[in-house]
Amino acid sequence: MDTTSLIGKDLAASLNADTKARAAAITAQGAAPRLALVIANDDPASVWYVKSLNRAAERLGIACENVDLGVDATAEQIRAKLTELSADPTVDGIMLQTPLPKGVGLDDVSSAITAAKDVDGVSPLSLGLLASGLPGFPPATSEAVVELAKFHGIPLAGRLVTVVGRSNVVGKPLLQLLLAENATVTIAHSRTANLSAVTTPADVVVAAVGRAALITADHIREGAVVIDVGTNEDDNGNITGDVHAPSVTGKAAALTPVPGGVGPVTTALLMRHVIQAAESTR
Amino acid sequence: MDTTSLIGKDLAASLNADTKARAAAITAQGAAPRLALVIANDDPASVWYVKSLNRAAERLGIACENVDLGVDATAEQIRAKLTELSADPTVDGIMLQTPLPKGVGLDDVSSAITAAKDVDGVSPLSLGLLASGLPGFPPATSEAVVELAKFHGIPLAGRLVTVVGRSNVVGKPLLQLLLAENATVTIAHSRTANLSAVTTPADVVVAAVGRAALITADHIREGAVVIDVGTNEDDNGNITGDVHAPSVTGKAAALTPVPGGVGPVTTALLMRHVIQAAESTR
Repeated sequence: MDTTSLIGKDLAASLNADTKARAAAITAQGAAPRLALVIANDDPASVWYVKSLNRAAERLGIACENVDLGVDATAEQIRAKLTELSADPTVDGIMLQTPLPKGVGLDDVSSAITAAKDVDGVSPLSLGLLASGLPGFPPATSEAVVELAKFHGIPLAGRLVTVVGRSNVVGKPLLQLLLAENATVTIAHSRTANLSAVTTPADVVVAAVGRAALITADHIREGAVVIDVGTNEDDNGNITGDVHAPSVTGKAAALTPVPGGVGPVTTALLMRHVIQAAESTR
Repeated sequence: MDTTSLIGKDLAASLNADTKARAAAITAQGAAPRLALVIANDDPASVWYVKSLNRAAERLGIACENVDLGVDATAEQIRAKLTELSADPTVDGIMLQTPLPKGVGLDDVSSAITAAKDVDGVSPLSLGLLASGLPGFPPATSEAVVELAKFHGIPLAGRLVTVVGRSNVVGKPLLQLLLAENATVTIAHSRTANLSAVTTPADVVVAAVGRAALITADHIREGAVVIDVGTNEDDNGNITGDVHAPSVTGKAAALTPVPGGVGPVTTALLMRHVIQAAESTR
């Protein structure tokens, strides 16, 4: 069967057009919406991502400030900075970059980001608000999966969606968003005894484990929709997903490309969160 | 096949013996551990439950205080009382009874219970701490399901567990606990298109929907373990579960009785949480 490519560009463009207009309206009332990126690493992938966020923000009229605490920052220093930015009325959104310095866990520090500015939904409270169905920001990547599916007309209500990956930043919040869409959800992970037994029955398979080419044609039924959240770097520095695209193509009804699928939508949603934070707190 | 009855009494007794000893040790240092039950209803089931909690606490040496705000209490009044009890150093644990007055949602008020005293894990922050794998109290019912399974030697790691029900008080927190046990988890609910398609492959089926006799032999495979969280009152005032026990018996490898399965373990875990709260905050 023909496999539709679930590209993210059109949805991202539509979100960005809206964000740009709302950013301009906010700026007209005072200062531009402002996002603080807190950085405590010199990881090449993170450096690249920060640059791409800086560019995206600039294009949309969002002021984006890099707050670099250095690779030796302690949990206390990171918490103190996040607390300070949380209290700073000129900052609308806060995003903490990973990886964090050795010995500092995201969970040790993320609770210092106030929920109203936690635009990537990483704090325990943000996760809990999401699970409770209360207002808060979901992690942008997990939201991008759902929004991309909806944009491409993929039904979720009553369908069986298997999420491979149980991370706090993708798998678990995605599960909450999928339940809110009335999907039946299976969550599989590294300890799942028989992965294909739980992916094969699924109408939609979401791969979010960070292992290149983990999901092959053997893992999906004919006509399944496959959404690839993975961004793995191969030996040549190219980004590849968690899905082995050549094998799945022709069997899946639809597949997100990597790059160009979930990624651009994630950035667009993150920027929209900054606007929403500014609109609700100013 | 013979269906083992997964009774809760032995585990509850073992938990209670430990709780009673720890309560006595706390009392020897000062005041008895203290649980505040906040009530704003005259619902017969709630009244019955409060009495049973009062009796359980008394047997274990826990001071249990009923704080009755009346059936007309507003969200503001309930929040104010929960905030006051959260700040009161003589109170170790707080439990808000449901149902709440008309128009007051649990989510509107539960965040006023500080996480350190939220012994039934109902606040958004408690849910988020659970999802993040951070210290906090899980809702006692969901914890009882996992503890009862472990007590009876039922393996969870790598097994497929289907939870029927997605409530914030049972289904969703249970999912987090099961993931922490390395189970592969499917969560089904009222909008699931084909329930038996997701319960039949499961090694363990947990019924937590509040619909009497929803789960029958047709929903399970031969040899599955069935855990029944339901407590439905029939026309004669008897408590029945979400599982149709006569039909499942003989096909399931094991089944929790209702009453006498998850229920007593839930109460025992709730009381243990009060002790843990007292031990960690005094």
